[in-house]
Amino acid sequence: MAELTLDPDNTALLITDPQVDFLKPESVVWDKVGETVEENAVVEKVVRLRDAASESGVPVFYSPHVYEDAEYEEWEHLNEIDRIMFDARMFDATGDGADIIPELAPDDNTFVLSPHKQLSGFWSNDVQIQLRQRGIDTLVLAGMSANLCVESHLRDAVENGFEVLTVTDATAAAGREALEAALTNFGFIAHETAETEAVVSRLQGSAQMASNIE
Amino acid sequence: MAELTLDPDNTALLITDPQVDFLKPESVVWDKVGETVEENAVVEKVVRLRDAASESGVPVFYSPHVYEDAEYEEWEHLNEIDRIMFDARMFDATGDGADIIPELAPDDNTFVLSPHKQLSGFWSNDVQIQLRQRGIDTLVLAGMSANLCVESHLRDAVENGFEVLTVTDATAAAGREALEAALTNFGFIAHETAETEAVVSRLQGSAQMASNIE
Amino acid sequence: MAELTLDPDNTALLITDPQVDFLKPESVVWDKVGETVEENAVVEKVVRLRDAASESGVPVFYSPHVYEDAEYEEWEHLNEIDRIMFDARMFDATGDGADIIPELAPDDNTFVLSPHKQLSGFWSNDVQIQLRQRGIDTLVLAGMSANLCVESHLRDAVENGFEVLTVTDATAAAGREALEAALTNFGFIAHETAETEAVVSRLQGSAQMASNIE
Amino acid sequence: MAELTLDPDNTALLITDPQVDFLKPESVVWDKVGETVEENAVVEKVVRLRDAASESGVPVFYSPHVYEDAEYEEWEHLNEIDRIMFDARMFDATGDGADIIPELAPDDNTFVLSPHKQLSGFWSNDVQIQLRQRGIDTLVLAGMSANLCVESHLRDAVENGFEVLTVTDATAAAGREALEAALTNFGFIAHETAETEAVVSRLQGSAQMASNIE
Repeated sequence: MAELTLDPDNTALLITDPQVDFLKPESVVWDKVGETVEENAVVEKVVRLRDAASESGVPVFYSPHVYEDAEYEEWEHLNEIDRIMFDARMFDATGDGADIIPELAPDDNTFVLSPHKQLSGFWSNDVQIQLRQRGIDTLVLAGMSANLCVESHLRDAVENGFEVLTVTDATAAAGREALEAALTNFGFIAHETAETEAVVSRLQGSAQMASNIE
Repeated sequence: MAELTLDPDNTALLITDPQVDFLKPESVVWDKVGETVEENAVVEKVVRLRDAASESGVPVFYSPHVYEDAEYEEWEHLNEIDRIMFDARMFDATGDGADIIPELAPDDNTFVLSPHKQLSGFWSNDVQIQLRQRGIDTLVLAGMSANLCVESHLRDAVENGFEVLTVTDATAAAGREALEAALTNFGFIAHETAETEAVVSRLQGSAQMASNIE
Repeated sequence: MAELTLDPDNTALLITDPQVDFLKPESVVWDKVGETVEENAVVEKVVRLRDAASESGVPVFYSPHVYEDAEYEEWEHLNEIDRIMFDARMFDATGDGADIIPELAPDDNTFVLSPHKQLSGFWSNDVQIQLRQRGIDTLVLAGMSANLCVESHLRDAVENGFEVLTVTDATAAAGREALEAALTNFGFIAHETAETEAVVSRLQGSAQMASNIE
Repeated sequence: MAELTLDPDNTALLITDPQVDFLKPESVVWDKVGETVEENAVVEKVVRLRDAASESGVPVFYSPHVYEDAEYEEWEHLNEIDRIMFDARMFDATGDGADIIPELAPDDNTFVLSPHKQLSGFWSNDVQIQLRQRGIDTLVLAGMSANLCVESHLRDAVENGFEVLTVTDATAAAGREALEAALTNFGFIAHETAETEAVVSRLQGSAQMASNIE
């Protein structure tokens, strides 16, 4: 597996679903995701990635997941994960569950994309055009949940010609099996997989190199 | 040209860019679009379509056009229409230009999609999934501007298998040439073209028929 | 999990990669996929599904996977699965590996889509427009390989509003872990999962019902 | 309007529908397109662009338009241009109309994409992944017909973040009005428009520059 070059000129950090309903004990599905979120210390690791990206001049994009009343009421074709989310009113725009967690409050280096609706922003939000309009063709991908939104963003990024490093421990899932499924698939589909620690070092290295050149 | 069936069960009215910066004299590009907007009485006609749709149980979707500071500052690949919009800060999320006009304030029968970013929601917002999740495969399409966002929504709806009736007089453009270009292309690409008057009658006919059946 | 209605008017059977390099011992990656292909008797089951579909008037679509010399030589962004395929010259248009297996030779009820290029036809072939132009909104999905092309077609079909029944035993993968990953993800993402035996019965039931009506 | 840099490292020449049914008197719709095809000497100009691209190391991609019997028979949602094409059996895979014209026979520098099905390859063939897998983000676009397939490829390339120079005289259309409509829209949507003569000079300049560097 080749090591991608994380050049701030064409690299972004993409975080899926950095929201209360996946990352905080107040989540309406904490019984399903809490265990691996805590085990992997996902909040802490995504914060570290975010900070390292910001320090190295790599822009950060959030692809959030939000539903409105009309969607809970009117959507007709629900699969299993839709049913789980809709029954719990997960990511409800009118509640707190769709809020971005305070630790990841957007700053000047963060661009919050429109909400994605099924699992991938490439089909339902502005992720592709926002990245391409900034000359980005390489992604560091992390967030929630591993086998659903992270994996769907990964698959579609690859279909559209992006190179993607997926961070294997800054993510979690609804159960250990779901997390394992994601890790298996990342191995086939990502251009590189790595852990937070290594990615943070490489981002800091890019920053160092850039500052030496200046 | 065949006449489409406008059945409330699988038809929606889709309005592009129903916003101040296209439809009101306060628009930052009124010098470019005002003439044909007034000549076609676009606001009045879109209101009539919206009312007829609501009365006949046909859901209404708005696909708005909005930009944030970061986009004005960071986008690198601007074409002519981007340049015009960005120079004028058209559809600025922080001003009034991106507001939906009061005459078209969303009601219970209106779903406001996420902002589209270039010209078509099919590439950058949730238009496709919102329609398909409600079993909609037939569109009545109107709004602004004729040869740009209306036409791009039309082209992409067709690419995705929707049947589209484009309303030829509930739209306008940046100049008469641009409007003529759109009308020419609608003739080739829409499944049907018709004027507001006729579409309103047909929508009211659907409502009548539905009420007779009940 | 609700049971989908498999109505010949709006249902299709979609088979991914029904080709020598996944299903026959001559495959260039038989050491990787042979075990689960044989264990699941994938060829036999896909044939049964194809026959039941044909008898019940459900159209069959193949989404094949093919590469040409220029792609092996010129593609720059290879992930792990690309590397495996390209190193082995899997699905080589100039050899036999890309051939549809004889048992599944296309007949009058089969439409062969253009080759998909990464894992999903929704991004690189004509699957969406061919289905929508025939009024199809419900899919029975099977084929190879479970966690890669089957799963990517499933995810993208869902993003585009199709309802999908994924057949859990008419598929296989590069190893047991990969197959397990797919089955886990199908459970979340498909609208229904079922085994070949049950799907064949239901397709035959649709045919029976249709013939009773006539 | 800025002048795009046509660097062989990230630029391609994209030609839509370089086929008999648009460019030769044997075309089944020559009565509709012949006049402007001849007036603009489209074949000669596309050949000049192709030759200049090849000499300067810029790869050439063809996005052809092809239909099979099953499509003529089974497609249900035909718009006006579909009807014209289907009635005439334009681009029939089983006849000569879909053949690439001899003057543009593919050579080592040409990649022929899968057929697009409605007007744009971005929705129904492999254009996006083939370009992105070769690091291409800038297009020189020409071919047939101006307001339909050329314009749809232009619009979708822009939606996906490509920069596009559209060649205004290496194209034609079904009538002068259709051609005028395209030229109007190119002015808004392309990142640059230019005539064949100027584009050929710039491509030759790129080649010259590259050879000086070596």
